[in-house]
Amino acid sequence: MTLDDLPALARGCAILGTGGGGHVETGVLKAAKAIAEFGEVPVVPLADVPPDGLILPLSGIGAPTVGHEMLMSGEEPVLIRDEVERLFGRPVAAVMSSEIGGSNGVSPVAWAARLGLPLVDADGMGRAFPEVQMVAMYVAGRPVNVVVLADVQGNLTTIRPVDGLWAERIARAVCVACGASALMADYVLTGEEARGSVIEGTVSAALAIGAAVLNSAEPLNALREALDATVLINGKVIDVERRTGGGFVRGSLIIEGTGDDRGRLLRVEIQNENLIALEDGRLRASVPDLITVVDAQTADAISTESLRYGQRVAVLSWPCDPIWRTERGLATAGPRVFGYDIDYTPVEELTHVRP
Amino acid sequence: MTLDDLPALARGCAILGTGGGGHVETGVLKAAKAIAEFGEVPVVPLADVPPDGLILPLSGIGAPTVGHEMLMSGEEPVLIRDEVERLFGRPVAAVMSSEIGGSNGVSPVAWAARLGLPLVDADGMGRAFPEVQMVAMYVAGRPVNVVVLADVQGNLTTIRPVDGLWAERIARAVCVACGASALMADYVLTGEEARGSVIEGTVSAALAIGAAVLNSAEPLNALREALDATVLINGKVIDVERRTGGGFVRGSLIIEGTGDDRGRLLRVEIQNENLIALEDGRLRASVPDLITVVDAQTADAISTESLRYGQRVAVLSWPCDPIWRTERGLATAGPRVFGYDIDYTPVEELTHVRP
Repeated sequence: MTLDDLPALARGCAILGTGGGGHVETGVLKAAKAIAEFGEVPVVPLADVPPDGLILPLSGIGAPTVGHEMLMSGEEPVLIRDEVERLFGRPVAAVMSSEIGGSNGVSPVAWAARLGLPLVDADGMGRAFPEVQMVAMYVAGRPVNVVVLADVQGNLTTIRPVDGLWAERIARAVCVACGASALMADYVLTGEEARGSVIEGTVSAALAIGAAVLNSAEPLNALREALDATVLINGKVIDVERRTGGGFVRGSLIIEGTGDDRGRLLRVEIQNENLIALEDGRLRASVPDLITVVDAQTADAISTESLRYGQRVAVLSWPCDPIWRTERGLATAGPRVFGYDIDYTPVEELTHVRP
Repeated sequence: MTLDDLPALARGCAILGTGGGGHVETGVLKAAKAIAEFGEVPVVPLADVPPDGLILPLSGIGAPTVGHEMLMSGEEPVLIRDEVERLFGRPVAAVMSSEIGGSNGVSPVAWAARLGLPLVDADGMGRAFPEVQMVAMYVAGRPVNVVVLADVQGNLTTIRPVDGLWAERIARAVCVACGASALMADYVLTGEEARGSVIEGTVSAALAIGAAVLNSAEPLNALREALDATVLINGKVIDVERRTGGGFVRGSLIIEGTGDDRGRLLRVEIQNENLIALEDGRLRASVPDLITVVDAQTADAISTESLRYGQRVAVLSWPCDPIWRTERGLATAGPRVFGYDIDYTPVEELTHVRP
């Protein structure tokens, strides 16, 4: 990963962020600074990590509106790496993004550069999710073993939770006490343990998605093709409701169709990420499938906090990684987990029929 | 420490709890059960702990109204001991009470019994205080190094804070996330490091105070003599204000004098513990000196939660350990720390003059 790759990576991660995952811009600044200071970051396929090599999954946690990358000292990854090496009794071989969507997909470049370690071409979500147990490692039944948090002050907290739900609960409390923002490692695992427990190829995918948008004269078409996405609607934002509380942003969005979509209305329900899309009371797309609102001209992702009345947008949806469609995947991050009383149906089976 | 010692220990710790420190009764039940199951607990002077022997200061943290001893599995000390031995690379030699006042003075008997370790005749406060950095080890300038918390579910959290204030902030957040109650070790130190950094002889003192009350036909006189205390007032509770929030109990108490004290009113300000006593707008006693409300007949301590209108009581005050009267001691737990805009004056210099 070089400085030249960062614009494509940032666009790709923002699109995979489905409206959440924090602002990519500050992640880009951190990554650029770290590459300039510590050098380029090799991106390696999981197959290249030795079976007993330790992988350090990292993510910033905190309310997305806090902009956690702004509140970091830069030394948090060192504190965490040292603690993990103490705990596991051997060196860390590579860094991994816990969450490719949003800033947590970009910032690991900075963290890996700071540590002089390669970045694994994989992550824990293949998208963004609001809670720390919503990762493929949890779905695959891996023990959370330890959660290590470092904050800008230099406080280091290590949690050995009884399960992933307690990990989320305690980690979030520590994060709030530390000023609503912290760097976190969880589900530390070896190369061998990672096979089948993480989502592979997602750093490359983010780069490819971003490059498709950047290098095309018709970015929206290029993006739709790169993702093999369904365009749920082309239109205009006519209503945005949003409130921040308890470290989460909740709200909804209404888009009125324009052009060929005139006369249609799409409603998107938001909890940090875009979770559900409805039209005429019928489901058009649902978490864990990805739903992203993009600028109609540039195809840049529009984050939950950046939504404004009058924006010309397209709403795209595309399939999540197969692990999220398993029974345990849906029990972890399906629509009912977020309080929606609906059964999950894959987006490719939810076709729109004109009334 | 045998089963027969527990009634005196409990009374002594309640009196040193100055109204706070949690209910001693559940601590007694735990200690009795643990002694019956695991055997008696040797109480050893600090001088008997080898210079390089590791001392494990333990306390329950949480709102006193939660009654944290009720919410423990009994295995928390084992989780914490194992973690501390991992972190420090050698065995723990003895348990110490972090806070002799209230239930945290009694429960260490249970924890030491469970671990098969002796209990050091010392503690970190010589009384009860509401915050974890209010310990002699902090006043003596010892680093907090690590804070280890275990909860009833089995979650284990280890904090390496940058200072004692961050330790308090993060530990309390973890405690709340774990259900408002946890067992905690902090300021782990060797026998050599403990000399001058802890308050010695306080387990013996609690036993002696309790025994004086239990074995006398005039318990109130016996208590006053054992403590060399000033009796601030003998009277009747005529007003109690109390509210619980943020893990703390705040309130105040008014006592109307009876007998020789007829015509006098004493006001006691409470923040978990009894902190300030005022009469006619003049200071009679102030934190860090100890102020305890006791039953006029039995001389049993009346905790903040047990105060009721109409109780016949005596209010006693006596000097704190000299470490609390140092500049750093007063900066840590003097009246201004609790929001009172007054200079500390030792209780023995605050004599009452009849109007």
